[in-house]
Amino acid sequence: MHPTPPSTGSFQLRVRYVECDPMGVVHHSSYLPWMEMGRTELLRSVGESYAQLESEGVFLVVTKVEVKYRRPLKYDDFVEIRTRAEKTSKVKLHHSYEMVLIDRGGEKSEQVCAVATTELACVGEDGRPKVLPGWLRG
Amino acid sequence: MHPTPPSTGSFQLRVRYVECDPMGVVHHSSYLPWMEMGRTELLRSVGESYAQLESEGVFLVVTKVEVKYRRPLKYDDFVEIRTRAEKTSKVKLHHSYEMVLIDRGGEKSEQVCAVATTELACVGEDGRPKVLPGWLRG
Amino acid sequence: MHPTPPSTGSFQLRVRYVECDPMGVVHHSSYLPWMEMGRTELLRSVGESYAQLESEGVFLVVTKVEVKYRRPLKYDDFVEIRTRAEKTSKVKLHHSYEMVLIDRGGEKSEQVCAVATTELACVGEDGRPKVLPGWLRG
Amino acid sequence: MHPTPPSTGSFQLRVRYVECDPMGVVHHSSYLPWMEMGRTELLRSVGESYAQLESEGVFLVVTKVEVKYRRPLKYDDFVEIRTRAEKTSKVKLHHSYEMVLIDRGGEKSEQVCAVATTELACVGEDGRPKVLPGWLRG
Repeated sequence: MHPTPPSTGSFQLRVRYVECDPMGVVHHSSYLPWMEMGRTELLRSVGESYAQLESEGVFLVVTKVEVKYRRPLKYDDFVEIRTRAEKTSKVKLHHSYEMVLIDRGGEKSEQVCAVATTELACVGEDGRPKVLPGWLRG
Repeated sequence: MHPTPPSTGSFQLRVRYVECDPMGVVHHSSYLPWMEMGRTELLRSVGESYAQLESEGVFLVVTKVEVKYRRPLKYDDFVEIRTRAEKTSKVKLHHSYEMVLIDRGGEKSEQVCAVATTELACVGEDGRPKVLPGWLRG
Repeated sequence: MHPTPPSTGSFQLRVRYVECDPMGVVHHSSYLPWMEMGRTELLRSVGESYAQLESEGVFLVVTKVEVKYRRPLKYDDFVEIRTRAEKTSKVKLHHSYEMVLIDRGGEKSEQVCAVATTELACVGEDGRPKVLPGWLRG
Repeated sequence: MHPTPPSTGSFQLRVRYVECDPMGVVHHSSYLPWMEMGRTELLRSVGESYAQLESEGVFLVVTKVEVKYRRPLKYDDFVEIRTRAEKTSKVKLHHSYEMVLIDRGGEKSEQVCAVATTELACVGEDGRPKVLPGWLRG
């Protein structure tokens, strides 16, 4: 039996050198994999794994992304990714995210540096739309 | 003397293996660097270079990104990135993009696989907002 | 009928902003996808495609990489990747590479900035070693 | 006062979806940022930070990388990166690494999936060779 999907969750990461660009800040494309990790960890927090979902023939593809960058993040920053499951339909999942600076060089913080939303569609191995497993619809 | 900024431009690229994910399609984060290249090539088409801009102390930072993914792109696809400069203000630049499949394994196409918009802000070396060079405002 | 595999080839690329790091130079990990592209283009130069090989159940996995970085490459540099097929065995392919700066900001050059070698093994869809198609063994 | 540099250290990470390729395994270029993180964590384990080093004008650039890939790693694998500081000279640092699979889908393991070595050179802000801070030479 699958559990009720969690509505919010968070995890923390350390900014990698490779994720930063010549301006000395995190490249704007580096935030997208973090949001993907946020969704993975949201599932894991209820004992599910996305890897497992894929092995059952359920694939979640990103169909829309919107990110607003408010303040730069830097190499070695300690960052919290807060993920929230928003409304779902039969074939789509919506999430929202906050990227929060927690610690920079020992200085504690709680600054929201970027906010984002995504829309995901459920597809089968053939790439065609597929109804979401009921338990994921909440 | 700087030239008038171009309003539209395009360039073509071959999808890299590393840009694709276990679903066998281009990872959604891989589109963002392509859009960045689109902006670079738009400048180059009038004899300007973003590298040069940075060396003059003018930095353009992405403050907002929105991407809609319609159809998957795959490894070795030949893709055209179409970039259009939209409205500008004193400190912000807006662009829109189309990612168009041109050739897949020898089969010609003209499918728009993703569309996107970005907002960029002009900042100085200190990261503070800065008025855009007049010629970039169009 | 498959053609004789080419022994040398080259292609050119423009360094992307996202490939550079806070030191303002190309991150050392960014060279590896370029070498992968070099192998892809080497095949294409004789009318083959790696995408096609995979669809025939032939996968080439990197089992060893060695790179020596001599001089930094920078954003917007125009670079030539020179790829050479070296000795092959029944299950392994060896290649060598030169990453050559061709143009930096309009200044022509022919500086070898990095050299590298790779070893690839042929595997099937199951990940198990597989004898290379004869025509790839040269 | 700076501490004695540590000779060995380790940290653990979860493989990201974006780090994997169409073969369903970690792309060979994804290991290099992990090794970079290994060096960062080795410094941190004695209260130092590479970010701090750079702010003092000490930059460590990778001049040589060698990686041997023995077994594939996959999405969501839990991996331990073991880093060892090897011999140093006045201007060069040598490290060796093991990438060890710790957990795959709940199954514990201790498989060394890749081994690697790197050589780093110390340079100043101008990119010119610079003598390593004494405490880093061990």
